[in-house]
Amino acid sequence: MKAPFREIPGSIIAPHGFRAAGVFCDIKRLGTGKGSNKGNKRDLAVIVSDARASAAGMFTTNQVCAAPVKLCLERIRSGKAQAIVVNSGNANACTGKQGLKDARAMSDLVATKLKLGHGSVLVSSTGRIGVTLPMQNVRCGIADAIAILGSSPEHGAQVAEAIMTSDTHPKQIAVEFSLDGKRTRIGGVCKGAGMIQPGMSVSGKRPAALHATMLCFITTDAAIAPAALQLSLEQAVAQSFNRITVDGDMSTNDTVLILANGRAGNAARGKPAFQSALNHVTLALAKMIVRDGEGASRFVTVRVTRAESVSDADAVARAIANSSLVKTSWCGGDPNWGRILAALGYSRANIIEEKIDVSYSLPGDSKRLFALRKGQPTNTPFTDLCRIVAQNEFELHINLNLGKGAAVMYASDLTEHYVDFNKGDVSDPASMGG
Amino acid sequence: MKAPFREIPGSIIAPHGFRAAGVFCDIKRLGTGKGSNKGNKRDLAVIVSDARASAAGMFTTNQVCAAPVKLCLERIRSGKAQAIVVNSGNANACTGKQGLKDARAMSDLVATKLKLGHGSVLVSSTGRIGVTLPMQNVRCGIADAIAILGSSPEHGAQVAEAIMTSDTHPKQIAVEFSLDGKRTRIGGVCKGAGMIQPGMSVSGKRPAALHATMLCFITTDAAIAPAALQLSLEQAVAQSFNRITVDGDMSTNDTVLILANGRAGNAARGKPAFQSALNHVTLALAKMIVRDGEGASRFVTVRVTRAESVSDADAVARAIANSSLVKTSWCGGDPNWGRILAALGYSRANIIEEKIDVSYSLPGDSKRLFALRKGQPTNTPFTDLCRIVAQNEFELHINLNLGKGAAVMYASDLTEHYVDFNKGDVSDPASMGG
Repeated sequence: MKAPFREIPGSIIAPHGFRAAGVFCDIKRLGTGKGSNKGNKRDLAVIVSDARASAAGMFTTNQVCAAPVKLCLERIRSGKAQAIVVNSGNANACTGKQGLKDARAMSDLVATKLKLGHGSVLVSSTGRIGVTLPMQNVRCGIADAIAILGSSPEHGAQVAEAIMTSDTHPKQIAVEFSLDGKRTRIGGVCKGAGMIQPGMSVSGKRPAALHATMLCFITTDAAIAPAALQLSLEQAVAQSFNRITVDGDMSTNDTVLILANGRAGNAARGKPAFQSALNHVTLALAKMIVRDGEGASRFVTVRVTRAESVSDADAVARAIANSSLVKTSWCGGDPNWGRILAALGYSRANIIEEKIDVSYSLPGDSKRLFALRKGQPTNTPFTDLCRIVAQNEFELHINLNLGKGAAVMYASDLTEHYVDFNKGDVSDPASMGG
Repeated sequence: MKAPFREIPGSIIAPHGFRAAGVFCDIKRLGTGKGSNKGNKRDLAVIVSDARASAAGMFTTNQVCAAPVKLCLERIRSGKAQAIVVNSGNANACTGKQGLKDARAMSDLVATKLKLGHGSVLVSSTGRIGVTLPMQNVRCGIADAIAILGSSPEHGAQVAEAIMTSDTHPKQIAVEFSLDGKRTRIGGVCKGAGMIQPGMSVSGKRPAALHATMLCFITTDAAIAPAALQLSLEQAVAQSFNRITVDGDMSTNDTVLILANGRAGNAARGKPAFQSALNHVTLALAKMIVRDGEGASRFVTVRVTRAESVSDADAVARAIANSSLVKTSWCGGDPNWGRILAALGYSRANIIEEKIDVSYSLPGDSKRLFALRKGQPTNTPFTDLCRIVAQNEFELHINLNLGKGAAVMYASDLTEHYVDFNKGDVSDPASMGG
């Protein structure tokens, strides 16, 4: 069977009709009065569609949410937008009325310069919490970015760089597929690293699954109506960004935005092919976030099956994926199933100890090594389990043998580097991220 | 005003009519076939009352609970007991039917040797999960301990040592007070270090507050009926052990047991004085566990006030006290209130960002430094906040300005030492604790 889509080079500029740029305007340095911006990494980006596009978004359900999130929640209701402006270095969170005013001013400036309606620019921020944006720098950055907008792969890469905070590398992807016989593309960039356990929705109502600053911007030239786009995005986020955890902390700024400008000329049908491509893009980006989580040395897929319900499966997967003791054992390459069972036991899920199977496998390998069957240790040699857990990537399978509920979580380990990075440098208050 | 009680030297042997002993019987080494027991630390203890005593207990609400917990839950119903046997080095958890048989055999052996009824011996274990007890060693240990039972301070100290796992020092306390004109004493020992966020109850029903292996054994010569003793213990645990967290992981073995033998000869009244003394003993022991938490470098009291409800206050206090990002910032002496607000925001509590006050103080100092008022940064110099958070102990105050709910949590920071300690040594499967 031919794959329904293929990965292609590039990112958000791969779909037709999009231009972008990322620039350095020193948001972090002037925000704190300190010269902490290393190597003049880009910190502001603009993404523009040539035509008014269908727009959809998913946002943090943290009750303390940043000004740009509040503004986007208001604007996304129209289902239409044409541009996105984003900065790193300052989260514009806990900044009160001034913060909202600044978010609005950022988007208005882009709208004015590009001759767009004021409601058609979405805005996003990540970085330090509790400090107002250095608006003079933001204005310069916006002018500079708009002056160099383009649609080369380099322009997409500028955006991927501009949104990075503690990320060690830019994260981007693009896919191409056929929709109603038309060549269609989806491209995306994202950032993550810490404060990562997104629980995004658009209604403000928390999804069953819960809890980064992660930002993700997706473009597509597919033609799709706003409501259908929102549903598609919700489904894509539910199986990707809302299934990851680095440290269990949900950010004030988590945002996923998608613009669909219809330039592919499809008949606004072919939803399964679109969904499948979008799911691939979001899941690939979400996994990049976990692999590049602060201090992460391992990528673990936690698969829970046969729980009484999906929410029980989710509770078990999250309890394990967020347990400090389980995550430190992974750091040591230690198949410590005692800690796994303890986490299972304090989750809110219904479990019966005597029914639990715990096994390990390597990615793509159907062979599983069982540590526990029916709640009892097997005779699998400990060193065999260690060989799997010593890998950079492995899968942990929990079978509760109770019902039909299943859930997956993608998690990193907890390392000394995470602590060292996050204990911060009190001589640099700019370390206070969101 | 005269203090209602005073601390005195000693621990569980301070009250009249109790004898105890702790011995080394090599439970950890022979349980794993490895010589990992360092310096022959004692690992088995027996505590005996000269007379049949009122007994009460609080136990982990983890659904995966150890065999000794199951046995105690069954026996505590009678409200009476006369002895406790406890071992470290092996948790006797996830050990199935053999585990229950072994727990019963331990207690039966003590009962037989001391000529007590078989139902009157309580049993407790902490250490490695998933391995059955080396019963030959346990039998030798019990015989050795019973042979040297005594009531000197040294005997109490032997018990405090025997229950230690990753603890760096023994934890004990004793108080004396007057009950109906009679001199009465309460003594206690406990252990903690990791897998610490107890959520104990006796009904199996989780307390509103949730989530060690921590073990605590308390003796008193007060005369008090079993039902009153159970209520007193529940109240004492609710304000102490159930208010602490080291790593947010609830153990399979958490246990608090109290024996009250009536030797003080009081009229089984005077509850307030008894409660106040018991509260002091449990809180002092609970704080010792946090201060000696694995890798802990700071002791932080998180006080939440004016929440809409007590459960909201509890949710906020726990979200902050268990946030990896907040705990690592404490490690760095960093008053990172951005992370505190993020944790507040993803807690399940109702909050209004614009009403939140966040302040810091030193223990015993009424002067508070405000970082945030009504959700907005104050002009308190960052370096002033740093001076408080740089201390080994400080208090964090969160005022939600909404209602009357209040809660406190006692928490440690998250350090590289915690990770280093818990990433384990895969060459030593005995590291799998419970």
